[in-house]
Amino acid sequence: MNFLSDTTAPAHPAVIEAMARANTGYAPSYGADALSARVEARLKEIFETDLKLLFASSGTAANALALSALCPAHGAVLCHDEAHIHRDERGAPEFFTGGAKLIALPGEHGKIAMGALEDALAQWPQDFVHASPPRVLSLSNLNEAGCAYSPAETAERAAAANRHGMSVHIDGARFANAVAATGASPADLTWRAGADALSLGATKGGAAMAEAVILFPAAMERFAELQIRQKRAGQMAAKMRFIAAQFDAWLEDGLWLTLAAQANAMARALAEGLCALPGASLAHPVDGNEVFVRLPETLAARLKAAGAGFYGWPDGSARFVASWTTEQADVDALLKAAG
Amino acid sequence: MNFLSDTTAPAHPAVIEAMARANTGYAPSYGADALSARVEARLKEIFETDLKLLFASSGTAANALALSALCPAHGAVLCHDEAHIHRDERGAPEFFTGGAKLIALPGEHGKIAMGALEDALAQWPQDFVHASPPRVLSLSNLNEAGCAYSPAETAERAAAANRHGMSVHIDGARFANAVAATGASPADLTWRAGADALSLGATKGGAAMAEAVILFPAAMERFAELQIRQKRAGQMAAKMRFIAAQFDAWLEDGLWLTLAAQANAMARALAEGLCALPGASLAHPVDGNEVFVRLPETLAARLKAAGAGFYGWPDGSARFVASWTTEQADVDALLKAAG
Amino acid sequence: MNFLSDTTAPAHPAVIEAMARANTGYAPSYGADALSARVEARLKEIFETDLKLLFASSGTAANALALSALCPAHGAVLCHDEAHIHRDERGAPEFFTGGAKLIALPGEHGKIAMGALEDALAQWPQDFVHASPPRVLSLSNLNEAGCAYSPAETAERAAAANRHGMSVHIDGARFANAVAATGASPADLTWRAGADALSLGATKGGAAMAEAVILFPAAMERFAELQIRQKRAGQMAAKMRFIAAQFDAWLEDGLWLTLAAQANAMARALAEGLCALPGASLAHPVDGNEVFVRLPETLAARLKAAGAGFYGWPDGSARFVASWTTEQADVDALLKAAG
Amino acid sequence: MNFLSDTTAPAHPAVIEAMARANTGYAPSYGADALSARVEARLKEIFETDLKLLFASSGTAANALALSALCPAHGAVLCHDEAHIHRDERGAPEFFTGGAKLIALPGEHGKIAMGALEDALAQWPQDFVHASPPRVLSLSNLNEAGCAYSPAETAERAAAANRHGMSVHIDGARFANAVAATGASPADLTWRAGADALSLGATKGGAAMAEAVILFPAAMERFAELQIRQKRAGQMAAKMRFIAAQFDAWLEDGLWLTLAAQANAMARALAEGLCALPGASLAHPVDGNEVFVRLPETLAARLKAAGAGFYGWPDGSARFVASWTTEQADVDALLKAAG
Repeated sequence: MNFLSDTTAPAHPAVIEAMARANTGYAPSYGADALSARVEARLKEIFETDLKLLFASSGTAANALALSALCPAHGAVLCHDEAHIHRDERGAPEFFTGGAKLIALPGEHGKIAMGALEDALAQWPQDFVHASPPRVLSLSNLNEAGCAYSPAETAERAAAANRHGMSVHIDGARFANAVAATGASPADLTWRAGADALSLGATKGGAAMAEAVILFPAAMERFAELQIRQKRAGQMAAKMRFIAAQFDAWLEDGLWLTLAAQANAMARALAEGLCALPGASLAHPVDGNEVFVRLPETLAARLKAAGAGFYGWPDGSARFVASWTTEQADVDALLKAAG
Repeated sequence: MNFLSDTTAPAHPAVIEAMARANTGYAPSYGADALSARVEARLKEIFETDLKLLFASSGTAANALALSALCPAHGAVLCHDEAHIHRDERGAPEFFTGGAKLIALPGEHGKIAMGALEDALAQWPQDFVHASPPRVLSLSNLNEAGCAYSPAETAERAAAANRHGMSVHIDGARFANAVAATGASPADLTWRAGADALSLGATKGGAAMAEAVILFPAAMERFAELQIRQKRAGQMAAKMRFIAAQFDAWLEDGLWLTLAAQANAMARALAEGLCALPGASLAHPVDGNEVFVRLPETLAARLKAAGAGFYGWPDGSARFVASWTTEQADVDALLKAAG
Repeated sequence: MNFLSDTTAPAHPAVIEAMARANTGYAPSYGADALSARVEARLKEIFETDLKLLFASSGTAANALALSALCPAHGAVLCHDEAHIHRDERGAPEFFTGGAKLIALPGEHGKIAMGALEDALAQWPQDFVHASPPRVLSLSNLNEAGCAYSPAETAERAAAANRHGMSVHIDGARFANAVAATGASPADLTWRAGADALSLGATKGGAAMAEAVILFPAAMERFAELQIRQKRAGQMAAKMRFIAAQFDAWLEDGLWLTLAAQANAMARALAEGLCALPGASLAHPVDGNEVFVRLPETLAARLKAAGAGFYGWPDGSARFVASWTTEQADVDALLKAAG
Repeated sequence: MNFLSDTTAPAHPAVIEAMARANTGYAPSYGADALSARVEARLKEIFETDLKLLFASSGTAANALALSALCPAHGAVLCHDEAHIHRDERGAPEFFTGGAKLIALPGEHGKIAMGALEDALAQWPQDFVHASPPRVLSLSNLNEAGCAYSPAETAERAAAANRHGMSVHIDGARFANAVAATGASPADLTWRAGADALSLGATKGGAAMAEAVILFPAAMERFAELQIRQKRAGQMAAKMRFIAAQFDAWLEDGLWLTLAAQANAMARALAEGLCALPGASLAHPVDGNEVFVRLPETLAARLKAAGAGFYGWPDGSARFVASWTTEQADVDALLKAAG
């Protein structure tokens, strides 16, 4: 009954097996290996476009690297008030960018409200030497409320940012869950909707330690600088093949989406079961693998006592996260403890 | 005949197997797992002291994190002119420290000369508001010329630094090779010689992607800040057990030293063989797993033509690196191509 | 009819005369001069406490230096959403702190609402390695809406911050106007209300280029680091006596408060006159030397046409700033043009 | 007998008078005033070229701003081992650039040796992702040994840097003394010799607090970013006219060169007098207003006892600095005390 986080889950066996398979003989270091190239080729197919790929060891690093390649130190990043980059990365974006400002915007269900975005764009000028100009809009998909931006929702926000000459970044620590949730193509959720860069996370979705930054064509000119920043941040792993191997297995035959679909389905099942209980109600729609649910105190206490793993959330709800390894039996066990 | 670098070598099978073994069930994330604790316990035994341990994904990150915990932004780090932190990390120490200064010192065979160290300590004051005070002495062991500092050599330099109130850091990307080379205990090579922090690298020595920062008792009070910096730098891996597992296997039953001894022995064999050739001579003593040798041009060209992997070094020598996977047959093949 | 900003006003003649008087013979450089010491002594009397003083060349520098001495790079500063440090300093606080986060809070009339402050303190934990802990509360007095915090209002907010172990900074670019407005003592408006540091601006109040950071006893231990940061930021002027001389004249015989009282009085007169016009109304109370007034479009246009200097403000109001040099005739001229 | 530093000297009366004259009525703030424009026009004439001008409050700030506009955070600056930017600015260049590396080069009499420069350019590659590429060569003129680079010496070094795609910065804290010393035109000493940017210091040469960064045509495209950095660093003074006024007076009718010539002449007179004493000898040629002289210990002690102001230098010599206010009588008094 562990629903604490998808970071507590193991890796999918195929991922570890791929690392073992990659462990033969010599290979060029620092990302010049054949597996890294193969993953880039795979991603070009999946995203239906040319792109540039760079690996990182954590989602925080991937986000901060991407933002630092898009936003100058004297600029600002617009993000949701609950964004991981703002709330949960100990200022890594500020560190990697050299002191850029994060401007937090409100919006229901973790989505930046269009009105709030337009207000911020009106209030923060692009060409006033005294003020930090917004240079990047960062959206999370899945977002921090477990909700998915549709291609249209992404495109609407990206278009507003583009009108002000800004870049668009997507924090895709749970991008696989967003693809599985929306049924939209990876391309439609990213560059076709106006995104310049994507942090593509595999760790939460079934890898051991494998994250990536993808630059889409509009931002590919920044790849050389991104690579320099990767090195300078200690993210250019010497034996990069071991990150590449994880992605290779994770992307093969749609495994990444299969695993995401399983996690999403288990979250839905859990949400349905919990909401059938008296006094329980969802705080946010359950698009992906996270369930935010308001629980009567006695129910929450009973679950804790039964050993269920979940976190109380700052907004008063309880967060349950399903992962690729969650099965119906886990959901049933939790619901049984609840009921 | 690949002697390009120990970073092109695969991981030892035991390391990958340990990752597979660790891949069962849920585990606390971000370093709170049981394997991480076990590695810390192992290291306390190996180093015969209390200590604090923190993992990183690359040697550059480990070095830069350690230095940033020891040196304020307005201070300076004394290091050898050829130090990896100065020459090969794209300014990562400057980045992580917030702009500390690296002051490069000369010395034969990659070792900081005592006279140069004393000069620098005399020239750079500790309490002059206009100048960056040296706050850290960083030694590499093995160093960048492939040579090992003995406990006494380390202690002499550390004592000079300590007299000026400075901390001492050891870049141990190839620390295992230094232990194997000197026969000294890990304790004698580090904290007993005055070191406050060690970057302990496993990647070059047989792991896939596993580095660590160790704080010895005199610096343990800085652990909380080090951990904050680890998070902020994107080095706090979500599924940390997969780094811990690598260290666990690498340290078990002295595997780390067995592998280092093998690499060192192969380097020695290679050095002996090469130096028997007309016109070839060592640029530096071969203490560990690196051979720097001056080769007649025709000989170097013949080796290249035969497919031997090695790098021309800025000082005009050729660098050959043996790894844990190098065998006598590899050495023989190279010598045959040479002869 | 120039009401654009108190930064467009000249310096008071006594300030320039003091610089001329200071311009005799040799004087120790970098702040070790006798005039600097005299200003510190004067300020101890004025603030009725021991304190540490350090000069800067701009208000932005004074604020950023003060914040950087109080807030680590991995921490956060709570401030009003319209705070100068957030909106008008091009990210200087982020730059000087090495990437600290500014968290913007709402509140009427430029004052941080207590509820918003308590919410932020509840939401942003002090001891969670993943999140930037709020380490400083920064209040502006006068604030950016031209309003003054009373000693009690300051103390209430400072107490909440102190309960969480935070420091309190006051941006006093127009502190003289706040003292004149409230009639409270400088001590009651600062350290007695819980402030640790004050950016004391003289430039807007009648100096040419003279700003200061004052550390009150609770923060005096940070003075050595503050001085290092002053040097490192290029704010340790070689011939510091010329900044000291300005402060010396400005503080002598209460000149600073006389000038502030004149500016405040002119703002009040202007506000009364404008609000007597049909359709005009104040956006904020006029505590100090700034008037934010909603004007009918035709009236605003008539004033512009008549050559009146003022700025349209983002909230739709018009801002008029009186300075020490503003006289009743200036107010009358503007009102005549309006009427 | 104060020969401690030209920073202990007063300002020339004309400079203070100009500030007083500028102190009338309102003026646009932040550098948009008419005096700032007039100084820029004056400098275009003096340097016989188009250029961009920006003021700063200290030489450290001017240097660090200039370097930060020319060198990325992941690059390096080549400078003399004794350069002010390396030894005397508490890491300000590292701070303003976001962590660029300063690489110190040797050379007699404070001049970077051509051989050392060529070696560094050979050793530090431009296109290797692991190493910080040298992006700027910084020369001081006058340099830290009181010597002047001739136009040819500057051009030779600049040409080597340009061949590697680097920019060239000149630290001209005592540029007036270099012009007076060499008799060369300001243009020949800077942009015609390959310089992209000049820190032009007036403070040591007779101003109160007035420094500038000049971008020559090849670097003018970086002006917008330089201005952003000026703001962000708290160097964009609100009442900029008071810095502009100082430069205006200092440059008028060649006052800057008259004052520098006087200081240089007094240094020469002092050097001649001291070197006539038994056991005294120059450590460096006396090109400008600084004298570095090796003195017998008894002589140095006698001078100190007589109240002479000078500093013992790290190389064992004694440094005497003449300023615009030094007169023959001061030199005579010192020589009398010595003899």
